[in-house]
Amino acid sequence: MGSAAMGDVADLVARVAAGEPRAIGRLISWIEDGSAQLPEAMGLIAAQPGRAHVIGVTGPPGVGKSTMTSALVAAWRARGDRVGVIAVDPSSPFSGGALLGDRIRMHDHATDSGVFIRSMASRGHLGGLAATTPQAVRILAAGGFDIVLVETVGVGQSEVEVAASADTTLVLMAPGMGDGIQAAKAGILEVGDVLCVNKADRDGAQTTARELRQMLDLSERGPAQWRPLVVTAVASRGEVDEVVAGLDAHREFASASGAGQERRHRRAIEEITALTLAQIGRRLSTTEASFVSELADQVVAAELDPFAATDRLRAHLGVDQDGAVPG
Amino acid sequence: MGSAAMGDVADLVARVAAGEPRAIGRLISWIEDGSAQLPEAMGLIAAQPGRAHVIGVTGPPGVGKSTMTSALVAAWRARGDRVGVIAVDPSSPFSGGALLGDRIRMHDHATDSGVFIRSMASRGHLGGLAATTPQAVRILAAGGFDIVLVETVGVGQSEVEVAASADTTLVLMAPGMGDGIQAAKAGILEVGDVLCVNKADRDGAQTTARELRQMLDLSERGPAQWRPLVVTAVASRGEVDEVVAGLDAHREFASASGAGQERRHRRAIEEITALTLAQIGRRLSTTEASFVSELADQVVAAELDPFAATDRLRAHLGVDQDGAVPG
Repeated sequence: MGSAAMGDVADLVARVAAGEPRAIGRLISWIEDGSAQLPEAMGLIAAQPGRAHVIGVTGPPGVGKSTMTSALVAAWRARGDRVGVIAVDPSSPFSGGALLGDRIRMHDHATDSGVFIRSMASRGHLGGLAATTPQAVRILAAGGFDIVLVETVGVGQSEVEVAASADTTLVLMAPGMGDGIQAAKAGILEVGDVLCVNKADRDGAQTTARELRQMLDLSERGPAQWRPLVVTAVASRGEVDEVVAGLDAHREFASASGAGQERRHRRAIEEITALTLAQIGRRLSTTEASFVSELADQVVAAELDPFAATDRLRAHLGVDQDGAVPG
Repeated sequence: MGSAAMGDVADLVARVAAGEPRAIGRLISWIEDGSAQLPEAMGLIAAQPGRAHVIGVTGPPGVGKSTMTSALVAAWRARGDRVGVIAVDPSSPFSGGALLGDRIRMHDHATDSGVFIRSMASRGHLGGLAATTPQAVRILAAGGFDIVLVETVGVGQSEVEVAASADTTLVLMAPGMGDGIQAAKAGILEVGDVLCVNKADRDGAQTTARELRQMLDLSERGPAQWRPLVVTAVASRGEVDEVVAGLDAHREFASASGAGQERRHRRAIEEITALTLAQIGRRLSTTEASFVSELADQVVAAELDPFAATDRLRAHLGVDQDGAVPG
């Protein structure tokens, strides 16, 4: 790589560190495109870790995640915080219009230089969200944002894990018994540091909040562990004071107790692991694609079983078997 | 491994091939537990590929996936098909009760030896659903089931991918504009071979079906490609004739056009890739855990960036860099 290109990358990162929206947007595009210059850029970004409070927001479809994000951004801006938002977006060829409608609410903040909002596609990326989202978070943190909010659409395994790897995780629910059960089914309740019943102007909000507190009473935790807060909000009217206070309280707890440091360590392990597996996966689908395809032919023809195919593939890659079987 | 243990595995697989429910259940537990005997068992299973039609069912929470599964099982049993069901279940510590409630409908089939139903936990498995679900499907196919149905709860990336890797994918929706948009957001519409508006006795079902057909009209496909069918049903009353006919029609099309063979090949590629990455991931979290933890310490301290950490980890594993960056 020539010195001109090196200079370009260093210049881009300097502009990211100065909080320049175009530079930030371009670097995030490099993640999405798998740019060859990304590792160099992320190496420079690492020297500017920032001090952002990373907040994950998740919940079942229809509970008002985008509205909540917009209301929280307004509340944080009112007290002077700079806010970056990553909206993880399962990019469907059908969904352009619908998602756009959702994002329109964000236009309230479109002219505010203290706010950066970006959707990131989640599909078609080997290694998926776990490999790409942390990089985008690092970029926004380096850009000097006080708060980086990661909003995940949907309630799937990967989406929940990404929201759960934040410093603080906010889980949204809407009033009604059904939602509580659906959230429990999706496995999202236990990842929430703050559980919020949104649309609290509707019937049943207090009942849902009470049910959530009862569910939490059933779960075991030590005396030094954080007890998730259950709060209510009407995000569509900007009534999110309890949410803001809850997120602040968890941040203080995590900082004072050392739980925050532990979570950052665990997040780094997840990031390194996801990135490594993504790189190996990328290799399997590019330079090793024909080798994998031949193995697949044999598996389809029942000449080879998938574990034996995997043994051959690992041997081909040069990775030793260590006797472990995936669970 | 001693010959006694070998004999045990061969005996278990023979009982699986005879369709014995306890043997099938035990072998599926081996997947969940990551048993050391699993590769040997799956090697023997591969010699008994079966002829099952593998059907994935997915859709947003609350559209009635479990009710639909139960109604489809009844319809298939009425014509003499043996049916295996894998319900992918994001195992939440909170969710036991709620999920159990859902599964109770399945008790209609509890005494029928032509039906096998099993929930599989989706969390805590490195490599996740993509590595474990195909193995369970293989086991049921080897058990001689005519149809193997994989039901995924939730609308996340991994869940949708698992449902989409079936021979035929059924996407459920409920009446109402909101559901259509939510489904599009979750990226599930384009994976459906059959799109079903369930709860069609409610207002708006025909409108939703029409909207779905309009969305499909907007998507490009070649003349030889399958055009997804839009059908309606009231699963709670057992009214699923259109769904059954649609699934049959897709199966015939896939068989006649060669699309089915191509999908099995792609599925084998995905399975081998997922299994390989799961095994490497397992190694990272066991024998290499302290090495990864040290790298994470350096990343948290901003002494090392994640890409540099990944380079070191890959070098440590013995996997060459090929210049590719994960996207």
